[in-house]
Parts: sequence; structure tokens; C-alpha cells
Amino acid sequence: MWSYQAPLRDMQFVLEHWLEAPEAWRRNPAFAALDLPLALQVLEEAARFSQGVLAPLNASGDRQGCQWVDGQVSTPQGFAQAYRAYVEGGWPALACAEALGGQGLPQLLDAALQEMLYASNHAWAMYTGIAHGAYLCLKTHGAPWLQERYLPGIISGASLPTMCLTEPQAGSDVGLLRCRAEPQADGSYRLSGSKLFISGGEHDLTANILHLVLARLPDAPEGSRGISLFLVPKRLERGQDNGVRCDGIEHKMGIKGSATCALVFEAAQGWLVGEANRGLAAMFVMMNSARLHVGLQGLGHVEAAWQNARDYAGERQQMRAPLRPAGVAAQAADPIRYHPAMRRVLLELRATSEGLRAIGYWAAHLLDQAEHHPEPRVRHQADQLAQLLTPIIKAFFTEQGFRQASNALQVFGGYGYVAEFAIEQTLRDSRIAMIYEGSNEIQANDLLLRKVLGDGGQGFALLLEQLRDEAGQGAAVAECAGFARPLAELAEALQALVAEVQQWALEDAEYPYRAAGDFLALCGLSLLALAWARAARVSRRLPESDPLRGAKLATAKFFFSYLLPQVEQRMTAVRSARAELAFI
Amino acid sequence: MWSYQAPLRDMQFVLEHWLEAPEAWRRNPAFAALDLPLALQVLEEAARFSQGVLAPLNASGDRQGCQWVDGQVSTPQGFAQAYRAYVEGGWPALACAEALGGQGLPQLLDAALQEMLYASNHAWAMYTGIAHGAYLCLKTHGAPWLQERYLPGIISGASLPTMCLTEPQAGSDVGLLRCRAEPQADGSYRLSGSKLFISGGEHDLTANILHLVLARLPDAPEGSRGISLFLVPKRLERGQDNGVRCDGIEHKMGIKGSATCALVFEAAQGWLVGEANRGLAAMFVMMNSARLHVGLQGLGHVEAAWQNARDYAGERQQMRAPLRPAGVAAQAADPIRYHPAMRRVLLELRATSEGLRAIGYWAAHLLDQAEHHPEPRVRHQADQLAQLLTPIIKAFFTEQGFRQASNALQVFGGYGYVAEFAIEQTLRDSRIAMIYEGSNEIQANDLLLRKVLGDGGQGFALLLEQLRDEAGQGAAVAECAGFARPLAELAEALQALVAEVQQWALEDAEYPYRAAGDFLALCGLSLLALAWARAARVSRRLPESDPLRGAKLATAKFFFSYLLPQVEQRMTAVRSARAELAFI
Repeated sequence: MWSYQAPLRDMQFVLEHWLEAPEAWRRNPAFAALDLPLALQVLEEAARFSQGVLAPLNASGDRQGCQWVDGQVSTPQGFAQAYRAYVEGGWPALACAEALGGQGLPQLLDAALQEMLYASNHAWAMYTGIAHGAYLCLKTHGAPWLQERYLPGIISGASLPTMCLTEPQAGSDVGLLRCRAEPQADGSYRLSGSKLFISGGEHDLTANILHLVLARLPDAPEGSRGISLFLVPKRLERGQDNGVRCDGIEHKMGIKGSATCALVFEAAQGWLVGEANRGLAAMFVMMNSARLHVGLQGLGHVEAAWQNARDYAGERQQMRAPLRPAGVAAQAADPIRYHPAMRRVLLELRATSEGLRAIGYWAAHLLDQAEHHPEPRVRHQADQLAQLLTPIIKAFFTEQGFRQASNALQVFGGYGYVAEFAIEQTLRDSRIAMIYEGSNEIQANDLLLRKVLGDGGQGFALLLEQLRDEAGQGAAVAECAGFARPLAELAEALQALVAEVQQWALEDAEYPYRAAGDFLALCGLSLLALAWARAARVSRRLPESDPLRGAKLATAKFFFSYLLPQVEQRMTAVRSARAELAFI
Repeated sequence: MWSYQAPLRDMQFVLEHWLEAPEAWRRNPAFAALDLPLALQVLEEAARFSQGVLAPLNASGDRQGCQWVDGQVSTPQGFAQAYRAYVEGGWPALACAEALGGQGLPQLLDAALQEMLYASNHAWAMYTGIAHGAYLCLKTHGAPWLQERYLPGIISGASLPTMCLTEPQAGSDVGLLRCRAEPQADGSYRLSGSKLFISGGEHDLTANILHLVLARLPDAPEGSRGISLFLVPKRLERGQDNGVRCDGIEHKMGIKGSATCALVFEAAQGWLVGEANRGLAAMFVMMNSARLHVGLQGLGHVEAAWQNARDYAGERQQMRAPLRPAGVAAQAADPIRYHPAMRRVLLELRATSEGLRAIGYWAAHLLDQAEHHPEPRVRHQADQLAQLLTPIIKAFFTEQGFRQASNALQVFGGYGYVAEFAIEQTLRDSRIAMIYEGSNEIQANDLLLRKVLGDGGQGFALLLEQLRDEAGQGAAVAECAGFARPLAELAEALQALVAEVQQWALEDAEYPYRAAGDFLALCGLSLLALAWARAARVSRRLPESDPLRGAKLATAKFFFSYLLPQVEQRMTAVRSARAELAFI
């Protein structure tokens, strides 16, 4: 049966050794009160909630799905109760500013929390997943009175926000949206129009829902320069209905416990967030947070896939393996984890899960540095790197979530295809993450066109510096030289490739669009290489008696032998994309 | 909305030009009565049935699923009626011997029929898909009286067969099966035991169901050398119930209209097929046919994915593309098929669908030659090649079915994830094919260990000859030299690699197991390269006014620029597999 145990041991490894986060907290006044024991205590609590409350609702929530009756949405049994426990635990406030009533903990810890929520119950975590982004958006762009009225509810969890972008004709292209906002004499606006695919657009978890809605003012220019952002509550201050109607929910391939709503705004009252016609800029504060979250969904799926495949492969016995570990006697049939094809896939699952974790937490750690580091130069560089990592994390992690869920399903054989074992649910749930919050194709364009070519390769140079720095440190550790050399070579190859890409993009404006997907995958693999080179190196600090020490080295060896060669193929593909691509 | 049109034009292209099948039929007494117009007429009829009867039941069958009540199984609405139309159309008899009441048409035409059935309704075609294999198995190994009694029902479609291998503890490892067969005084046997995951184990399409069951005789040796094959009908000659009880059906990720049954045999009467304890050999006649069929399921899914993605990408308008075809004016937003990332994926869908079709039909054509060619040497070589192709087709085609279904889903964006468009059904349905009839990992071992290393590379040399021959012919055609050269180089590289692999396998007995998956993928890509080099060359025979002529060349160019480079990565991976693979 499907199960989930939060990987606290590896989370600690990433915090303590891979990131050396406690050292960074100690030197940062914003986190001076935080140390490793406190952080681990928070994570243990989060693990208890995820394992004990959310994971048991994962399969039942999928079976029951959401119900829509006359505009009212019921979430699956137990979802509302779990949400109350989440609020009582204070989890919505985790990474919110202390001055506003939050706990002031770093986004790094929030990332670990989110990984656990998504891994244990993706559908449930869809309701809470957008809250931190909405908090940031409102905190950055909302008028003081609007913050005063609505931020406390988000921080306490009394209200849940939504992100209302998509309309039937406007998906990736928000410039096509038609929802209208009419200014009123009192400074508010009346919003009218339809929104589609709104996660948590209606539900029974909170009394109020705060919709952040993109719409057009009457005199707005066409396209994406004529879009403004509004806060439109489901209920007004005295609880009156505000004319936001849920027209139905989608029947989806997965995340069936998450209500994906069609909403109709019928002259609903709302207030401008940020400047008129600058709605996309305001929304992007939220979107960037959402993209990191979506990447963490991918990580959560990989972790859940890895755990369940590993456990099943240890129990299921089929055929004799060509080799078994030293000292293990032959039986009629071996556990399938001894078979080479299964070892191959289990090691890939482990390498991906632990590798993505290091990278995903690093991005969150960079966001903390970008916001709170005392030195402006460090803040600026951390922000640049985080911006660069965001599309990679969104697209590469979610691609891996789906791929590794499929790999894990294969380990289960026929049992993987039946609902009983719920690994097929992991596969179905994982697939959406490649699509929403900017499809993976949009992320690839964002990465190559804006983040790499757009700044003349400055941000990318910071990434290469990280690879080189790690290669330099690894070269000095005997057991890690085999990883340091290829990592250094990779950095050189990437630099040369980007120089070529810059040149080809000048000669052929369409070229980078053709190469973008492979370039993003190449960057994702390169980040995994960095993750494993560093993991191997810092694992040398663990006591020899710690099994994680040997496991990290073995997994790093696997990554460099079996997965890193994919880098070459992606480099070739980036070069091959110079060839014409016919119109169909 | 999901739709399916049989790709008759491309089927004709493969038959007429890629395979030059009419020429082969003309020279073969077994098919002397067959010519291209007759073949196309058969395919047109099959297309009418698939498009008109099966495709409309695809989404509804998925929604309704099968119902199990007290051992009785109801298939979705319309399934039984469709089956009656299938029987009335004479389709079960298509490729059965004329002497036995069949139509005596080649397996090549049956392959095209099967592709259409699977593409239009995979779940429905699960009921009929095993029939031809059962026919072959019984015809080859059944006692004359058994053939006389049961073959006519299979050929007419009055009865449907099943293949009963799996038991809860015995999946990939049939040697672990426990089902028992007790010999009776009258020469029959009484079978007792449980079988799991039996497709069509119970249903309401036919009055009788003929179970082909693997079981053990009382004195049988342990493992796979102690397994015998039995025919066990659901009902005996006068309609009596034979003690085969359906204990339940699985709730699955996909192919929900196909009843996947748990069966219990309660001293059910059966008869030996083939020799005692040689059941696997007899079953393999059926299994090999089933594996080609499963490959055709993959092809069917790729084709359905391609069609639906292409149509949607032509309708949906989002954002301006960096380039549009000459003469097309800019609009507020372009059809997404102009966007480079979408062109990339649409071309991959097209290249994969048409490429797999050529290869899959070639395998069926080889089976026809192996059975009916007048010259023994040609028969032998065709058989060798077909044996070699079978695991590649099973595994590579089904991997592609899943991959391309996911690619197509991505084209639909958010609409791809909702049930309404049913492309998510294609993804769910396609996933099973990587598991059943021998998991793709089993196929990979079969290919490398048995089919390539097992015969010292003889069969593989035949495949290389095909690549070289095509490269030689292509070199003489101006527009095709750009494909001929890399194909010739590929053949050399494959030969060198196999020589290395042979050596490494001698030095390290586990090595080929570690390399098998990548080796199979490499072979699949190499077959696609052969498919596209030949398609480009023979498309030069089409009139210049035929749009297929230009499309074939453009798709071949795409394949050789964008997809062939994956060959390098797989070669590297086969070499990398010399590295140790840790036990987890």
C-alpha cells in the first residue's frame, strides 16, 4: 500500500551539510534566533502532520474527489478537518514576517514543509500552496489599508487566496484575457467575466476566499500591457456574498481532491493591487513563489515514488538475480531490488529525489539571502541566482516528478497499474505540474531568452562559478576527485555552449526558441551534477558509522556513471536545434 | 474533443512503397489472390469499423468501466454490440488459414487492422487482441480433436480466448506458479488455483470463453520446466458451467472498459495443449503474437496522440509566434502550431507515428514471409529478423506510446488534464502496455541476452545488413544522401558496439543486464532511422503534386536533425553500464 515517511534524515543533511544553513542563520540578524535543533523540531512537527494527517487522506481523497452542487463545493472527507489542524498548528504563518504576526522563519524551512505537504497529499496542498505567494504579493503591492484588512486572515489561515489568471481563450497568453474591472466612485472596482481552471476557487475549508484576479480597466491598452491586478473577496466585510459564482469543477486526470473551478464574476467588488495596467508585475511576485512551489511538488512526487518503489522492491520476490549482495544466500526467487534493471531505476529514483532536494532547498535559501542578507552585493547575487533557478526548478523538477513516478510504477509491475497501490495516483497527480503556473515550454523560453540571453549571461556566470567552486573543493578530497573533474569540465562546456548559443541567437532569432527545452534539461542535469558532487564531498563529514555516508558516495557514483552522460546528449540537441523546424 | 481517423494514406504508403508488399504477394503462392486494391479495400472497411463503431465508445467506455456483480461482468454500453458487428464483419478470421475457414490474408493486413482497433479503443480491443495468438497456439500445439472442437469458434469469433499466466506470487516469474492440474481417467485434467490480471477473463461478449492456462502436473519438476499448458473452457460442450469463477475485477488507471479479472479454477475440466511440462514453449507461440500486438497498441496510441495534438494545435491560438509560414499574416495570436516548441513536439509525434508504423508492419510482413515464402532461406532469415524485432517492438513502441501521449497532452495545456478532451485517457490507457506481456525490462533482457548475445550476433547482423542496404540505396538519391551517410555510420557504430558488448559480457556476466534497457532503446532509434531513410527515398516515387512527398522528406530531415542524436547518448549509456551498480 502507498505510504509516506518524511525524509527527515536527508533534509537535515541538506540543511546542515549541503547548505550549511545554520552557519548562514547565525550570521544573519533576521534569523539570529534560529539554530539547527529548532529547525529540526519544526520539520519533525511538519513530518508528523504530513504523515499522520495528510498521507492517510491521499488515496481516499482521490477516490472521492470533490463534489459540486449548485455552486457549492465539498472537498473529500477529512480535508476540512486536516485544514483546521494545519491552521491550529500555525503552519500558514511559518515564513511570514514577525512584525505582521508571522513566525519569521526562513523560506528554506517553508520549502521543506511544502515538500512534505505535496508528497503526502498533492491535492490537499493545492488549497494552501498559493497562500505564501499571495502574502508576498499583497505585502509588496497592496495598499496599507488592504494589507491591514486582508493580510491577517492569510497569515492565520482564516482565509485562503486564489490566483485567477486563466480564461477559456487566455491560457499561456494572459494578454488575451477579457475579464473587466469598472472603477467605482468609492475607489473600488466592479469585476465581471469568467475565469477557468482556478484551483481552490470554491471550497468548504474557509469562510472567505480571497481571489487575486487579473482584469482589464475600461481604458486599458490591448495585450499584456493593459492588465491590472485586483483583490476580490468571496465575501465582503460583513459576510455579504460578493457575486463570485462557481460555475462548475473540472473532472481531471489527477489531483481529484483539489477543486479546479470555473468562476464567474458578476460585478463583484474588488480593489486594485499595485498600479493600474501593471498587474503582471504584481502578479509575478506571486507567480515566482508559485513556480518554486510547483517544483517542490515535483520533488514531493519523486520522493513518494522512490519510497514506495524501494519498499515494494524489497518485498516482492521474482526470479533469481544474476548477482546478490555479499553474504546473501540464493533462494527460489530474489527480492526484485537485486535485479540490475530494478537497481538501475531505484538508484535513479534516489539520485533524483535527494539531488532535487538539495537544489530546491538551495533556491529557497537564496530567496532568504536575497531578502535578508546584510550585504547588498550578496542580496543582489542571491536574487539573480534564484531568478535563474526558478524556471529550471519549475520545469525540470516537474518533468522528473512525472518521469520518476512512471519509473516507480514500473517497479510495481501489474500491481502498479491498479488503484489499490496508489502509485498510479502519484503518476496521475504529478502530470499537472508540467502544465500549470506557466507550462514547461514557457519556463524554457523564460530561462534561455530572458534569464540567460537577456542579461548577457551574467546570471548564468554565477551558476558556473558555483560549479567551478565545487569542483575546486572536491578536487582536494580523495574520494571526490572522480566527481570534481567532470564537474569542472561541465562548467567549461556550458560556458562554451552559451557563447555559441548567444552567437546563433543573433544570426537566427528563432533559434533560441527551438533550443530552449533541451537547454533547460541540460541546466537541470548540471544542477544535479553540482548537487551530487557537493553531497559526496560534504558526506565525508559524517561519522563512518553513519549509513548515509556510504549511501551518498554510492549514489554520487551512480549519478556520474549512469545519468551524467545525458548532459552530452542535451548539448548535442542544443546544437542540433540550429536545423530548420518545419511548419506542420 | 478526442477523435480518430484511420491513417489510410500512410498505411498505403507503407504497404506500397516502404515494404513493396504487393510485389511480395505477387511472388508468393499463399497470397497470389491478393493485390493492393483488395488490400486497401480491406483496410477501408476496417477504418469504417474503427472510426464509426469503436472510436465513439472510447471515452464513454472509460467513464463507465466494467461492472462486476456476483461473478458476472458487464462491459460498457455498446461494447457487446460492437463485438457483434466485428464478428459479422468476419474480422476474427482475417489472417486465419483458408483451410480452416479463415480468409487467409497476411498478418501484415492484420497488423494494420489491429493498429486501428487499438488506436480507436484500446480497452475494447483487449477482448479480441489475444484471439489470433490463441489460434496460432492451438493450431501449432493442440491435438487434432481439440482443434476441431475449439478452433472454429475462435476463427468465427463465437468464442473469445484468454491467456492465464499470472498468479498473485508469479508475475514476471512464471516459474513460481502454483495452479495445479490433476490428470483424469478420460485423458482430461482438473485444474485448481487462482489467476490474476486476466484480461477478458469474464465478460458479456461471447457465450463461451476459452482459457489457455499454465498449470503444474502433480509430478512436475519445480520452476519453469514444470509448467504445462491447458485449454479450459468457461462452458463445456453442452453449455455446463466448468467451475471457472470470476472473483472480481481490478480498478485500474486506464483501459477501464477492459475487464481485468481474478479467476478461480475449481476443479475445472481442461485438456493439455502441447507436451506435458513444455507449456512455456507452447505458450510462447501465443506470447510472441501478443507482443507484436502490444507494440501495435503503442503505435495506435502514438497515432491517436499525434492526430489529436495536431488538430488542437491548429485551432488553439495563443501568443504570436517568432515566425509563421510564408504568406501568413500576423494576428493578435497565432495558432500554437506555429510556435517552435509545438512544432518540435508535433514533428516528433509525426516522425514517431509514421516511423513506428513502417517498422511494425515490416515485422508482420516478415512473419508472413517466415510462414509462407517459397524459399527456405528467406523463411529462415525472416523468422530470425522477426524474432529479433519482437522485443524491440514490444518495449520501444509502448515506451513511445506513453511518451508521445504525454507530449500530446502537453500540447493541450490545461485542457489536456481534464477528462473532457480524453487525451488524458490516451496517456492512462497507454501506460499498461509497458508492463504486460512481459515487462519492458524483460524484453530488454530477451533482446540483448538471448537474441543478440545468444546467437553470437547472427540475427543482429541481418538487421545491420538492412541498414547498410538502405544506406547504399539512399546514397544514390540526391535528396537522400544526408540520411544515407548517418545511417551507414550508425550501422558501423552498432557493429563495433556489439563486438564490445560481447567482450564485456564475457568479462562480467552481470554487465548485459545493466546495459539491456539502453541497448533496446538504441535499437528502437536505429529502426526509426532505417524507417525514415527508406521513407524519404521511396517517397521520391510519389508524384510532385502529392503533399505526402514533401511531408515525408521534411519529417525525415526532422528525424535526422533532432531525434537521431539520441543514438549517441544511448551508445554512451550502453558503455557506461560497465560501471558498478550498487545494491540498495
